[in-house]
Amino acid sequence: MPLMLRKMKRVTMGHGAGGEMMHELVAKHIAPFLPSFPAEVPLTSFDDSAVVDGIVFTTDAHTVTPLFFPGGDIGSLAVCGTVNDIAVLGARPMAMSCAMVLEEGLEIEILERVMRSIGEYSAKTRVPVVTGDTKVMERGAIDKMVITTSAIGRRSDHLDGNLEVASKHRRVVSRWLTDDNLADGDEVIVSGNLGEHGVALLSFREGYGFESEVRSDIAPLTGLIDDILRIGGAVSMKDPTRGGLANTLNEWSSKSRVGIEVNEIEIPVSQPVRNACELLGLDPLTIGNEGKLVVAVVPQMAERVLEEMRKSPLGKDARIIGRATSRFNRVILRTEVGGRRILEPPVGDPVPRIC
Amino acid sequence: MPLMLRKMKRVTMGHGAGGEMMHELVAKHIAPFLPSFPAEVPLTSFDDSAVVDGIVFTTDAHTVTPLFFPGGDIGSLAVCGTVNDIAVLGARPMAMSCAMVLEEGLEIEILERVMRSIGEYSAKTRVPVVTGDTKVMERGAIDKMVITTSAIGRRSDHLDGNLEVASKHRRVVSRWLTDDNLADGDEVIVSGNLGEHGVALLSFREGYGFESEVRSDIAPLTGLIDDILRIGGAVSMKDPTRGGLANTLNEWSSKSRVGIEVNEIEIPVSQPVRNACELLGLDPLTIGNEGKLVVAVVPQMAERVLEEMRKSPLGKDARIIGRATSRFNRVILRTEVGGRRILEPPVGDPVPRIC
Repeated sequence: MPLMLRKMKRVTMGHGAGGEMMHELVAKHIAPFLPSFPAEVPLTSFDDSAVVDGIVFTTDAHTVTPLFFPGGDIGSLAVCGTVNDIAVLGARPMAMSCAMVLEEGLEIEILERVMRSIGEYSAKTRVPVVTGDTKVMERGAIDKMVITTSAIGRRSDHLDGNLEVASKHRRVVSRWLTDDNLADGDEVIVSGNLGEHGVALLSFREGYGFESEVRSDIAPLTGLIDDILRIGGAVSMKDPTRGGLANTLNEWSSKSRVGIEVNEIEIPVSQPVRNACELLGLDPLTIGNEGKLVVAVVPQMAERVLEEMRKSPLGKDARIIGRATSRFNRVILRTEVGGRRILEPPVGDPVPRIC
Repeated sequence: MPLMLRKMKRVTMGHGAGGEMMHELVAKHIAPFLPSFPAEVPLTSFDDSAVVDGIVFTTDAHTVTPLFFPGGDIGSLAVCGTVNDIAVLGARPMAMSCAMVLEEGLEIEILERVMRSIGEYSAKTRVPVVTGDTKVMERGAIDKMVITTSAIGRRSDHLDGNLEVASKHRRVVSRWLTDDNLADGDEVIVSGNLGEHGVALLSFREGYGFESEVRSDIAPLTGLIDDILRIGGAVSMKDPTRGGLANTLNEWSSKSRVGIEVNEIEIPVSQPVRNACELLGLDPLTIGNEGKLVVAVVPQMAERVLEEMRKSPLGKDARIIGRATSRFNRVILRTEVGGRRILEPPVGDPVPRIC
């Protein structure tokens, strides 16, 4: 009992993991103190981005360790994570901010390597860093560096057309691709193999040996999202970062008040990630990704969207993994052996500090 | 020589201090790696905020220690610092983001105290927190918490009118209250007593005993700035945070390519801050403030603006401290004893981690 009490009163690693514990921390100890103001997509939606007066706005603090890892680094992670959060709402990212907290004694060469990566991904995504801040904490007061990127964006030119296509087939609730926009029958598409970012980091960090085969999937999703919106029919999108696909599907299910049924056999996971997860006792569906997209599409357009996604290198392994249903209100996984189980949102995260 | 070399290759506390060293770090090791895109007020202006497509955008990482101090805490600091950076450009802050990195083991009660303060200042400034992020780093990997706030804003309704008034008297270059907007003859007004934030923190932290008399001046400047814009004639504004007034005046001087002459005797500094600075060998002109405003006004409007500022509690001690001049291109201080000396921008900061 005293242990429980102590546990309740202090922040734990699980509180930063993007799962149930973090949601509880935010819902109980953070959000209630913030006055609410009307907004198109307000804080209380806890969506990937907010929308205020037509401006899409998001922020992410990046604490990944180590700073450099197979497939990426804290710089590419910061740019892609933030740009993707804007894009999945159906917006075009316009500009980023970059606030860095550096540890006294950090090699300038490391800082420059990170900046080069930020610059490279800024050029690649055509999203400029327009404002920033630099602070230094004394040696030992921070582990090397934390980078917080925020971004602003505007409604994508293709979002209205996309929603119009969807509206031909059923009533669409939100003007943005928010988490509450799914309805019975919508098909769920995953853009590619899951679990790579988390497994690559964990393996590299601990030297498990999978790091030669598994690299982080860090990538900007703006191009792929544009392609989908041009086809039309998407009602919601998410990038399954912390908490993985399990978290994404549960957020959709609870906010849209629909059930979601997915087939394990359809969920793309590469063999090396499968092997690593088996060895380490991890579930690839709860592991964070940084370059994958989950899309909910009205059923009439699902095949067309899938086909279009597969034309892109980032979507070549895309699969329809399941659909929304009004028959129940949970996320149900049809397992490979033919059973059915509830797919819960993860409580904490099996792999800390992956983003 | 080896010491020098080592020093050059690593980040030091001075690199985060807002003075010459930070400017050099940013100019040499950060900005060159970022591709430049056209913007109304781009990154390369290094102004308080950027302007992209009519949206004013800024970010600040807050690393203050301790978290609570006389006159404020990391929460009020985060809100006011960011809101003020938007407002001094001549904009109305619309929304904030709040990304927190917490240390594992942090008491939830402390987190809630900080959140309550953020909420209070969000309500006071009427700027909602619309989006956020929460990360946790393991015990020892971060000193309690870092809060990064970003904000967006739109052109103030009164900015065009204000600039029109200024334009009656001379050609005004920028459409925003940017650092490059001063010209020969502009009067410089300071809104009140300088040095309070830095001295309050330092004294409280080290137990020097001034903390009973000196409290941080943390305050949102939005109301005071609105009052000034309604009168008209302001061409630039800054909040003299890290690096203090010395840094503010030098930024103006170098970016506007004018000299600035200020009279030490006119610069408002309270007696306790004076005493503390004397004892500790600090210069109040290089110490950070968090609720003060420095305004450059066309000379014909300076008295009117001053009068208006003095009606507000935040401006009651406002003074005209000097003026811009084309006779030289440095910042010159006329000392109290009648001498003249160059007021250099500070190299580092005498007081680390005050914001």
